Amino acid sequence: MGLRLRPVDTSFYDLFTQSAQHLVAGAELLAEMLSDSSDKVTVAERMRAAEHAADETTHEIVKKVNSTFVTPIDREDIYNLGSGLDDVMDMMDEAVDLILLYEVEALPPELSEQVDVLQRCAELTANAMPRLRSMKSLEDYWIEINRLENTGDRNHRRTLAKLFSGEFSTIEVLKLKDIVESLEGAIDAFEKVANIVEQIAVKES
Amino acid sequence: MGLRLRPVDTSFYDLFTQSAQHLVAGAELLAEMLSDSSDKVTVAERMRAAEHAADETTHEIVKKVNSTFVTPIDREDIYNLGSGLDDVMDMMDEAVDLILLYEVEALPPELSEQVDVLQRCAELTANAMPRLRSMKSLEDYWIEINRLENTGDRNHRRTLAKLFSGEFSTIEVLKLKDIVESLEGAIDAFEKVANIVEQIAVKES
Amino acid sequence: MGLRLRPVDTSFYDLFTQSAQHLVAGAELLAEMLSDSSDKVTVAERMRAAEHAADETTHEIVKKVNSTFVTPIDREDIYNLGSGLDDVMDMMDEAVDLILLYEVEALPPELSEQVDVLQRCAELTANAMPRLRSMKSLEDYWIEINRLENTGDRNHRRTLAKLFSGEFSTIEVLKLKDIVESLEGAIDAFEKVANIVEQIAVKES
Repeated sequence: MGLRLRPVDTSFYDLFTQSAQHLVAGAELLAEMLSDSSDKVTVAERMRAAEHAADETTHEIVKKVNSTFVTPIDREDIYNLGSGLDDVMDMMDEAVDLILLYEVEALPPELSEQVDVLQRCAELTANAMPRLRSMKSLEDYWIEINRLENTGDRNHRRTLAKLFSGEFSTIEVLKLKDIVESLEGAIDAFEKVANIVEQIAVKES
Repeated sequence: MGLRLRPVDTSFYDLFTQSAQHLVAGAELLAEMLSDSSDKVTVAERMRAAEHAADETTHEIVKKVNSTFVTPIDREDIYNLGSGLDDVMDMMDEAVDLILLYEVEALPPELSEQVDVLQRCAELTANAMPRLRSMKSLEDYWIEINRLENTGDRNHRRTLAKLFSGEFSTIEVLKLKDIVESLEGAIDAFEKVANIVEQIAVKES
Repeated sequence: MGLRLRPVDTSFYDLFTQSAQHLVAGAELLAEMLSDSSDKVTVAERMRAAEHAADETTHEIVKKVNSTFVTPIDREDIYNLGSGLDDVMDMMDEAVDLILLYEVEALPPELSEQVDVLQRCAELTANAMPRLRSMKSLEDYWIEINRLENTGDRNHRRTLAKLFSGEFSTIEVLKLKDIVESLEGAIDAFEKVANIVEQIAVKES
């Protein structure tokens, strides 16, 4: 707990904000992927590029923490937050990749609800990252993410029930189940980030 | 290793014991879920309530470790044990939830064997948690959990072989496979808790 | 970072090298499992024995770190590297186990490409572990592992596309999907080990 000097270092916060902005871009691409009018191959290429950019930011966070003698928040928390944000991107990239790979004809409308949840989570996270500097108004952020994760959970269950209703061939169920599970995984990953932020805030208080 | 003062603090041990008692309740509800005579909707609601209570206890553990200056065991181990116990509950809750959601007609009898293993693991864990205070007789606990996890592994393999034997439609295989995998996941999660306890005991010796 | 005395302790490096050598043996057994002429039951028994030997080495690493007052690299990194190497073995063991359990008639040739990648990863890892002592020439190792993981990713996607092409019955798709996913998981686990080594190297520089 607080026995070391805490210099004011803006760069970590800038990098976390950058990471979260990649998530906003990624969630937007995921929404495009679900649209009938999109060229799925092109959207997937742009997602792959966004995922590489996110990887770069994550690498910068790791390099910075390894070369900084006194960190503004616990070293372990910086690693966890950086890799937590990276995990969200990986899950969204996986969802886009599977939609392309599986050549799914008709994506059930329920998937759009999950992507709405993801876009909302990304927006909230990108707005919260700069507030790590002051530790102010973060509780609203993690409370809302928890609420959105519960919504995502309910959407997920409803979608699974629909998948197994007899409406889809078993092979289509297999494909769609993989896709909905990466969407659910991405929402859970946003919640994991919020839990890390809550941990950091509690320690600093 | 032991360079700090270790005050005798009973509260962490009480919270770990509370967590483990939620697991006993959860494993009992899982057994009820498999019974033909149960009202699956009601059992699932009671499981959801037990999972929320377990979450509360986990939150108390995290709050306590963040507000305690000198902890009786390593801070990191308290987090890991608390979240390890929470993970078991989440997996058992998922199994109950899927049994309800998937409206599985006939649950293979093999599932009862896994639930017996889970009930035995929960009982052992609830009896072991208070012994963290003295660090006595913990080896028997983790050795038995390891043995039970091996039993669970053999049950799991046998059940998978049965699922793929041709006895079930492919869509039923998909549903049952998810359920048996969360039961297997819950047993593995109990073993992960035992590994954390072993780590703590070795450090303290 | 470097504020403690670092004694030259060869034993950790010997244990990491031992772990990695188990992975070379395991990848070789996985290759035998894919061969038409092998007795799959016997190969699986030898894999199980190799997995137990790997577990023993992992336990020795944990015991050693818990009984060593000053470690040559961060305690946390020793745990992570030890368990990272163990995770690779678990995934390869799971792949062998499923090939046996699922009694798959015709294993698609694509699986051999993944096993080639795994054998290459195991070889590189076994050659890299002794170099942890000097921290020399490790960058080539993790760069090549990253390249191999990308190859594995492309193989994986191509295999999934083939599985869903209509060439296999849905029940066969279910079985083969599990197998290819454990192969993919093993390759990802090798990359996770390389990331841990990179982290260690960066800290020591």
